[in-house]
Amino acid sequence: MKLGDLPIRDDLRGRTPYGAPQIDVPVRLNTNENPYGPSASLVGDLAEAVRRSAGDLNRYPDRDALELRRELAAYLGHGLAPEQVWAANGSNEVIQQILQAFGGPGRVAMGFEPSYSMHPIISTGASTEWVAGAREDDFGIDPAKAVAAIEEHRPDVVFLTSPNNPTGTALDPEVIARIVGAAPGMVVVDEAYFEFARTGTPSALTLLPDNPRLIVTRTMSKAFAMAGTRLGYLAAHPAVVEALLLVRLPYHLSSLTQAAALVALAHRDELLGTVDALRAERDAVVEWLRGRGLTVADSDANFVLFGRFADRRAVWQGLLEHGVLIREVGPPEWLRVSVGTVEEMAAFRAALEEVL
Amino acid sequence: MKLGDLPIRDDLRGRTPYGAPQIDVPVRLNTNENPYGPSASLVGDLAEAVRRSAGDLNRYPDRDALELRRELAAYLGHGLAPEQVWAANGSNEVIQQILQAFGGPGRVAMGFEPSYSMHPIISTGASTEWVAGAREDDFGIDPAKAVAAIEEHRPDVVFLTSPNNPTGTALDPEVIARIVGAAPGMVVVDEAYFEFARTGTPSALTLLPDNPRLIVTRTMSKAFAMAGTRLGYLAAHPAVVEALLLVRLPYHLSSLTQAAALVALAHRDELLGTVDALRAERDAVVEWLRGRGLTVADSDANFVLFGRFADRRAVWQGLLEHGVLIREVGPPEWLRVSVGTVEEMAAFRAALEEVL
Repeated sequence: MKLGDLPIRDDLRGRTPYGAPQIDVPVRLNTNENPYGPSASLVGDLAEAVRRSAGDLNRYPDRDALELRRELAAYLGHGLAPEQVWAANGSNEVIQQILQAFGGPGRVAMGFEPSYSMHPIISTGASTEWVAGAREDDFGIDPAKAVAAIEEHRPDVVFLTSPNNPTGTALDPEVIARIVGAAPGMVVVDEAYFEFARTGTPSALTLLPDNPRLIVTRTMSKAFAMAGTRLGYLAAHPAVVEALLLVRLPYHLSSLTQAAALVALAHRDELLGTVDALRAERDAVVEWLRGRGLTVADSDANFVLFGRFADRRAVWQGLLEHGVLIREVGPPEWLRVSVGTVEEMAAFRAALEEVL
Repeated sequence: MKLGDLPIRDDLRGRTPYGAPQIDVPVRLNTNENPYGPSASLVGDLAEAVRRSAGDLNRYPDRDALELRRELAAYLGHGLAPEQVWAANGSNEVIQQILQAFGGPGRVAMGFEPSYSMHPIISTGASTEWVAGAREDDFGIDPAKAVAAIEEHRPDVVFLTSPNNPTGTALDPEVIARIVGAAPGMVVVDEAYFEFARTGTPSALTLLPDNPRLIVTRTMSKAFAMAGTRLGYLAAHPAVVEALLLVRLPYHLSSLTQAAALVALAHRDELLGTVDALRAERDAVVEWLRGRGLTVADSDANFVLFGRFADRRAVWQGLLEHGVLIREVGPPEWLRVSVGTVEEMAAFRAALEEVL
């Protein structure tokens, strides 16, 4: 009895599970985690929040996570109300719920690649056809070409990513506005890495008041340094949130997740306090890589895409042998390194010197 | 701008979100929660587990939850290996993953109603056609009729529930075996309430070695008294788990959930120690209701379905006015009451006396 003997869906046959290798090495720079763990004070508050809420663990959580949505709205600002905010187990689940509500059989989702590889994977899981648009050589999106592609394919859901993963590229809100104007359905701007954008980069949240078919997604996994908590969220028109209530699994967000996310929001100054250091380290590694004669994409995120290598696998493997795990992802000939601590980036640079 | 103005999927139009009313009343007997909260010692261990694991919350969780699956396999027994066990955020997510892997557009899922109302709802969310088979007047399943229905509809996924929600009815493994033999696809036995079954009731786990298309689902929300933790799991052939890896969202199960579930498993004697008291209280309320001249379904679960009321809504409302919240669910003329503490059941009986 093998996987292929089971009556799985035809479009899953021959696929392999998604996922970066989880390898235990000294320097992990492969999944864009924030390298800074919570302080002892924050850990203490998390444990205390669990102690306070655990007496009720025999009861189901608040199905609509009202308190958490109120605090997320306050964090996002832009005059957002709790009714405009929704949360789930990571932005992956947020995206899946969007596709379940607005995609599905006979419907089309579209993105501009190279981009976050989970968008097409989750689309497939939600039985939504995926159409890949293209980015330019500098990994930006040409609005005229994007509008033409949208008019050709009439996607029900368009995914934009700003800053884009794995290239680090942020989008001008005017480009987003033109795409929203052309799109016949929903437009999702995935801002998972927004907090790392260079100063002055506007969020797509500024476009929400005029665009009820726009959805902006965020996560606590990156700048908030809470990848283990799995908390993704979105802001949109209240009617969009009502639509998601039709497909969300009841009680999808555990009491522990809600409690931990509230603690993280209360400690936002500490958690987001790592962002400046990571941006400085990012800019330094971009400069260093360029100084080594490599090609490097501009980055507004906590990672850097660099190349170009005729045999990128050999470079990836060489770094791994020096105890540095980065990610073999993105267009051929490119590699992506997450921005770690000062010490981790020094180890990365030293290892790369050895390998090249 | 209203929900109906958005381009949601056609089959979602006009639907309302699933969910029992979350009303704050003194006696909540509506969602089959275990009324006994964790002890101070267990709460302390949960907080301590969070304290130990929270230092790494900036890192993603173990994507495959290996330690948790090992402990769940050990709890289930029956010689199960960790490779045969899978876990997700509540059995709702387990069921959704099963439908994403084995259902989908052009495929059919089938259940025997009245049964757990989330099975058809999650099927719809996964774009899988739902076919409702019927139970007998005593809420059992007639194997010959079930086999005939399966041969007629050729379902890709069959849902059985044992004990069944909302009727409390357990299935004879021979009935399950006949259905598995006839089904062309996967058969899911939802054992969310198994631990409450009367002594001697065999689990469908006994059928796993001979049936690679059988899946048995469980939850920590009921007997384990951990509804707030949201931990559902399943046992099946290892190839079934491989199939689910193709559709599960990466890192779907947070570090906190994995840690809390491990603590709950370590405290299983305490948590499951409430089961005997709840079974005794269940049997007492069945007897009392029958003594009052009401019709009551046999129950192997932590709830009781009783009736029959020409106007069940009036009875439900009357109980609510006495501070007792039960559930208006199941076939017309019937109501379902969850089994609470001795005091809560006394309040329920007193309120029902008043109402009738």
